[in-house]
Amino acid sequence: MRPVAHRVARAPASSANLGPGFDALAVALALYVEVEVKPRPAGLLVVTEGEGAEIATGPSHLAARLATEVTGEDRLEVRVRSDIPVARGLGSSAALAVAAAAAAGATNLLDRGFSIDHHPENAAASVLGGLVAAAVVNGAPVALRMNLDPTFRFVVIIPARELETKAARAALPEMVSREDAVFNLGRMGLLVGGLADHDRLFATAGDDRLHQGPRSVLFPEAPALLVGLREAGALTSCWSGAGPSLLGICRADDAANVAEAAVPLMERHGVAGRVVLLEPDLTGCRVEELD
Amino acid sequence: MRPVAHRVARAPASSANLGPGFDALAVALALYVEVEVKPRPAGLLVVTEGEGAEIATGPSHLAARLATEVTGEDRLEVRVRSDIPVARGLGSSAALAVAAAAAAGATNLLDRGFSIDHHPENAAASVLGGLVAAAVVNGAPVALRMNLDPTFRFVVIIPARELETKAARAALPEMVSREDAVFNLGRMGLLVGGLADHDRLFATAGDDRLHQGPRSVLFPEAPALLVGLREAGALTSCWSGAGPSLLGICRADDAANVAEAAVPLMERHGVAGRVVLLEPDLTGCRVEELD
Repeated sequence: MRPVAHRVARAPASSANLGPGFDALAVALALYVEVEVKPRPAGLLVVTEGEGAEIATGPSHLAARLATEVTGEDRLEVRVRSDIPVARGLGSSAALAVAAAAAAGATNLLDRGFSIDHHPENAAASVLGGLVAAAVVNGAPVALRMNLDPTFRFVVIIPARELETKAARAALPEMVSREDAVFNLGRMGLLVGGLADHDRLFATAGDDRLHQGPRSVLFPEAPALLVGLREAGALTSCWSGAGPSLLGICRADDAANVAEAAVPLMERHGVAGRVVLLEPDLTGCRVEELD
Repeated sequence: MRPVAHRVARAPASSANLGPGFDALAVALALYVEVEVKPRPAGLLVVTEGEGAEIATGPSHLAARLATEVTGEDRLEVRVRSDIPVARGLGSSAALAVAAAAAAGATNLLDRGFSIDHHPENAAASVLGGLVAAAVVNGAPVALRMNLDPTFRFVVIIPARELETKAARAALPEMVSREDAVFNLGRMGLLVGGLADHDRLFATAGDDRLHQGPRSVLFPEAPALLVGLREAGALTSCWSGAGPSLLGICRADDAANVAEAAVPLMERHGVAGRVVLLEPDLTGCRVEELD
């Protein structure tokens, strides 16, 4: 077994689904988790800072589990610094898994990220950056990077409440009408075309009939907030992943105004939380060998 | 009312759906219908040549109806020359409507083509050329041109049987599983990404769970022919529109071999018909004013 190298890796957050692209699309956002792995004479040391730092610090921490799994070694120092809020629909687990695997020296990052929740799109965005299409093919994740106009800005409403992916998924019906399935296919085409060029992104390209409606039972203010983001100047709006974060997809020139308008919008609907204005991440996971 | 000008317009055939992109995607093919419209001292003369020439030659002919509707004039000579087989899933009606409307001087070609069958994707491909995404938004057609690698070649199996779009649609169930809807969304992302770059087109990107299966009741040999096209070297394969034509999407270098292999493949499965090898049309509808 090769000795463990000292590496630091950074992976971006991501918004999956993006309205019609349920379980199929995601975009990487310039909000990061960084994981550092280095060898240690004895024992496992896990140090966490920032978002999610309270969750676990021992060998059960996701980053520690992946680092020991990838290296086959448990004499490690694993440091995690995250700016990605947890359980908000911003792909924090996938980003953490990708960064931890990369810092531990893994190369099959998409597989590692996918192994966490068996949804490939967040992991694909954290690995590749930009806009990704992803699917599970014969049990394995497959992903492609798609064209993304780099001038888009993302206004993210991050409510001060968690929404567990499992609960969000349990809210979905097993059967849907063919009409609704076709609705999403059509909007997804318009969304992929529009995300490649901000002059062609129509409001309807963010519309969905498969998941946002049923999930709104868990977050009844969401539909009004989505409308409010568009009224404030977002080209379109949608849930981020399984929520509760909501995304306004904006022209660069409009984004600051939309972000500013989102604060009283949340207040008006009694939703506590914060608003962040993010650029897309176009790099994906970056890893650096330190010494 | 302005006097009717003498114009000739040409519009390409198209393959809609393309597997997962049910009612959402279409690609224009270099197989054309040409419509010429010119003023006449008295009476309507309709002259038809080529594919579909036997269908109607009087005022009920689709091209004549559109030409009189657009010009508000029934003293017209309308000449139609088509190489697009009718009722084979190659968008012949949409292409004819687009060409006729253009030859008559219309500018809202997408609306005119859409008015025929209320499905926007064939009309969008005939108007714009290349690969298109389309949807119906508040009753109106919306379409975007998507990136298409121009080196793709399309091997089209055209069975010697008609399959009416209405019957093909009636074969479809009203409800589908969420899993199947998601399957199509994921494959559609891979298809759009792969059609932009032949090095990234995976076989699974042509797979569908919403329409091809149920429609195979009307064309039981189809699944084996789709597999056969892939085995012969097509990168992927799918139905063309509502069938019965089937499409093998090929690298330029492989297309002749696939087309050659398709002939004995059809014989082996007892399917009469023909095989054509087509380039994509990248121009869409062209119109020329003659004098």
